[in-house]
Amino acid sequence: MNDCVFCSIVAGTAPATMIYSDDAVCAFLDIRPITRGHTLIVPKVHATELVDLDPDLGARLFRTGHRLARALRVSGLASDGANLILNDGTAAFQTVGHVHLHVVPRRHGDKLSFAKGFLLRRPHEPRSTAAAIRAGITALEQSDQGAQG
Amino acid sequence: MNDCVFCSIVAGTAPATMIYSDDAVCAFLDIRPITRGHTLIVPKVHATELVDLDPDLGARLFRTGHRLARALRVSGLASDGANLILNDGTAAFQTVGHVHLHVVPRRHGDKLSFAKGFLLRRPHEPRSTAAAIRAGITALEQSDQGAQG
Repeated sequence: MNDCVFCSIVAGTAPATMIYSDDAVCAFLDIRPITRGHTLIVPKVHATELVDLDPDLGARLFRTGHRLARALRVSGLASDGANLILNDGTAAFQTVGHVHLHVVPRRHGDKLSFAKGFLLRRPHEPRSTAAAIRAGITALEQSDQGAQG
Repeated sequence: MNDCVFCSIVAGTAPATMIYSDDAVCAFLDIRPITRGHTLIVPKVHATELVDLDPDLGARLFRTGHRLARALRVSGLASDGANLILNDGTAAFQTVGHVHLHVVPRRHGDKLSFAKGFLLRRPHEPRSTAAAIRAGITALEQSDQGAQG
């Protein structure tokens, strides 16, 4: 047991709008999003900083971020890109002591709203946002299966 | 043949201060560093954005970033952390059309110099900086081998 909020989210004892989950990692909406759809991906096993994180698990984390960045483009959010950011250590602005990868969807011409979001970090509609992203993940899966078939 | 500057660096036809290279990826100093030791890691095969990048190669890219973040802490730069940033798409501030992962070393109390570096992005001493990071990579390898032995 520990008092890590991300471990509590992983355990289901703290609330979060979950986007994706597998045996190694899960992804949920940032409660203080910079843009609509701003998601955090975390390893399910606790690791405070990158020095504590198994490299294989780190690769799983990034694979999920890569996939999410692709899914966001085909989702209802229709992103044109994303910032993938991992702040390692309090010196690097890490605010929760459990490794997490930010995926911040971006759109062309959003610089002003991005700057505003960076300052205000107000929640958007989490339910519809999560539904849109999940639909994007499903669409990506179907697209990949079609490409393989 | 293409006119991608990062492909030219990979091919050795454009100058760069190389930190690390293997069969899949290489890492070199950013010529406009935010902090001393700011490094870019790129896949050797051209991929413009994450949608063009093979997921296995993306995982290799991140593994190298993860390892570099650890190496920087034991290097002469003595970082306390790092920002790992991948800007995917021009909408997300990607300025060179070849996927690259930024690794920006950070130290406790560097907020002001970080902000200054973000605005000015002036080169530091690339030779001594690269030598310090390479020594950190070697130190990490020896430490890992010691832990296994």
